[in-house]
Amino acid sequence: MEAFGDSVFAFAITLLVLGFQVPELKAADDHDLLRALLGQLPQLIPYTTSFATIGIIWLNHHAMFHEVDHVDHGTLVLSLLLLLVVSFIPYPTAVLGRYGPLRSSTVLYGMTLTLLGGTYSLLWRHIVRHRLSKVCNQPRALKAKTRRNLVATFGYPSGTAIAFASPKTAVLIYLALAMFYFLPGHRTWTSNGDGPLDPTQT
Amino acid sequence: MEAFGDSVFAFAITLLVLGFQVPELKAADDHDLLRALLGQLPQLIPYTTSFATIGIIWLNHHAMFHEVDHVDHGTLVLSLLLLLVVSFIPYPTAVLGRYGPLRSSTVLYGMTLTLLGGTYSLLWRHIVRHRLSKVCNQPRALKAKTRRNLVATFGYPSGTAIAFASPKTAVLIYLALAMFYFLPGHRTWTSNGDGPLDPTQT
Amino acid sequence: MEAFGDSVFAFAITLLVLGFQVPELKAADDHDLLRALLGQLPQLIPYTTSFATIGIIWLNHHAMFHEVDHVDHGTLVLSLLLLLVVSFIPYPTAVLGRYGPLRSSTVLYGMTLTLLGGTYSLLWRHIVRHRLSKVCNQPRALKAKTRRNLVATFGYPSGTAIAFASPKTAVLIYLALAMFYFLPGHRTWTSNGDGPLDPTQT
Amino acid sequence: MEAFGDSVFAFAITLLVLGFQVPELKAADDHDLLRALLGQLPQLIPYTTSFATIGIIWLNHHAMFHEVDHVDHGTLVLSLLLLLVVSFIPYPTAVLGRYGPLRSSTVLYGMTLTLLGGTYSLLWRHIVRHRLSKVCNQPRALKAKTRRNLVATFGYPSGTAIAFASPKTAVLIYLALAMFYFLPGHRTWTSNGDGPLDPTQT
Repeated sequence: MEAFGDSVFAFAITLLVLGFQVPELKAADDHDLLRALLGQLPQLIPYTTSFATIGIIWLNHHAMFHEVDHVDHGTLVLSLLLLLVVSFIPYPTAVLGRYGPLRSSTVLYGMTLTLLGGTYSLLWRHIVRHRLSKVCNQPRALKAKTRRNLVATFGYPSGTAIAFASPKTAVLIYLALAMFYFLPGHRTWTSNGDGPLDPTQT
Repeated sequence: MEAFGDSVFAFAITLLVLGFQVPELKAADDHDLLRALLGQLPQLIPYTTSFATIGIIWLNHHAMFHEVDHVDHGTLVLSLLLLLVVSFIPYPTAVLGRYGPLRSSTVLYGMTLTLLGGTYSLLWRHIVRHRLSKVCNQPRALKAKTRRNLVATFGYPSGTAIAFASPKTAVLIYLALAMFYFLPGHRTWTSNGDGPLDPTQT
Repeated sequence: MEAFGDSVFAFAITLLVLGFQVPELKAADDHDLLRALLGQLPQLIPYTTSFATIGIIWLNHHAMFHEVDHVDHGTLVLSLLLLLVVSFIPYPTAVLGRYGPLRSSTVLYGMTLTLLGGTYSLLWRHIVRHRLSKVCNQPRALKAKTRRNLVATFGYPSGTAIAFASPKTAVLIYLALAMFYFLPGHRTWTSNGDGPLDPTQT
Repeated sequence: MEAFGDSVFAFAITLLVLGFQVPELKAADDHDLLRALLGQLPQLIPYTTSFATIGIIWLNHHAMFHEVDHVDHGTLVLSLLLLLVVSFIPYPTAVLGRYGPLRSSTVLYGMTLTLLGGTYSLLWRHIVRHRLSKVCNQPRALKAKTRRNLVATFGYPSGTAIAFASPKTAVLIYLALAMFYFLPGHRTWTSNGDGPLDPTQT
């Protein structure tokens, strides 16, 4: 499951680039191409946001599975649900990139991230409730992880609600949420990638 | 073979999203985009069905190869045949998503799933006949597995036959068949994904 | 290198499906869609040929690297050259699938397969000349392997030469060459995929 | 991280082929198709350049991670940044392939390679400054590696500056830089891909 999930994450993150369409010009004119390419610059925002979001969810999912002792049926179904949402992300990213922060494109994007955060939370709560992870015996680490997850669980739907009023603000919120998880001081990884992830360590 | 197969499954499942085409609008109009996006909502049904179907076949194929002692030439050829069908699935999924449940699109989709079920059954029967798997010495597990496979072997062609009369009903049957395999109470996975899969265990 | 190569092979094989374009119809008409889909049937020939060819080259490349003791600079550069050709295959496959066996599309396809066979032969000869593989000490196995490679080294350019006169014949030759390698009686694989491949064994 | 990174590199390298568009002809005419295909020949230059560049960066990134003892937060963030640039490469490659060496397409391509070299250098300097790699205790190897990186750090921005005056020259510089890293006499790999990479060895 872990290897399969990793492949799906890596592949979804690489498919994001297909959201950039080569401009269709009648002639190979340098000036026109420059203008078309500059017009695509804002597309870098949803591209980067989606890239960072998938990257973060992948790191957490990978860490989560390393600490899990036993994969029950619920974990499996919820994991596949998470992968279903992850592999869908390139589409709303392409729509938002193509049409910019309209209300419809931004709400679609926000709803997808909300589903992503929601599915991830469901998976995490299932693991905690059934005590399937080693982390369940480490109260401080458990609390820290659950607190971190809250940011996504509440941040994404809030952003989506704001998208109805101001799509541009919402897009910046999504980008900020992705960046939030990259703030230092939370984690240490060992060189072989197999070591324990202890979020209480600085 | 196992790693290669896993990659093909993961890629095919992620390529499904390319069935969603970014709407082509003349102007970046919010109202028009909303209508175009809402018009794509039914595409989620074949997308989810194909995702779940590939997911299920992948889980079974992965489990099957873990129990196999010896890979002979027939197993190899039949496995490549299975991967050929798996990697084709994004196409009929995109056609069904684009044109909805017409007779032609639904029959094409159903024929692909029938081929998928058929190839998988051939592979399974080859393994059982040549006693290549550890499961061959566990009569109860063998029976349970073979019984489960029957659902696909007969369900997919039946759905395809129904597609000639009522494509919509057929689409719901394909979705139901994919969901059937997610019913709990059949399997347990161990945390490292290497443990034995014992379908007689509840 | 081996894992990277495997990913490239698996990914190239899965991208082949993108050669099938969803028909562009003005209305969602069942009759028109059926006709368009039936018109795509011949595309299955280059799709299957490329799938089988990449599958075969991957099996051989994977086996070759398992027997190699030492990867020198030449092996590395020739392997990347092989991957360059492999990852290009989806393009001529799509062209041949779209326009059928015209002279230009068939020669392009044949030249790509010729390059594939040529690069593979160069890699194999480099390994044999520098005695980098365990097989170099097994004269019978070495002879059998080298003989098998000849089929591709001479078969692909011959097919391409024929493509100038009769593209349809050439397409059938490429398909036949891919099928040739699936004939039984040559190999045995062990269950974990790590065992030795002994082509002298029946 | 290593496996994930390898997957992203492999996918990005294989997505390059999507830069080749199947020609859109009104009729399946052999002569027209031949002309269209010959017109695509120059596209092989950016395709090969990007393929070789990603291949080289991947080999170096893979080797770098094998020698790293401890992955800290900075390494992780800089690695994801590198992967962000890597997975973007298929887009400027497709633009350069489609429109040829115009000033805009070449500068876009060069800026992407400059970002790639820059991100890679930042990652390497972070690892050296924090002494995270085994190589940090091997002065000669360290010097050789740092010297090699300089070629990319200065070569790519220089090429981009030249692109403003002569795009064609710039394209050849990018190709030459990719080829430079394939010159022999620098490295030896062991057969299992896990051995130490010693750049002081010939």
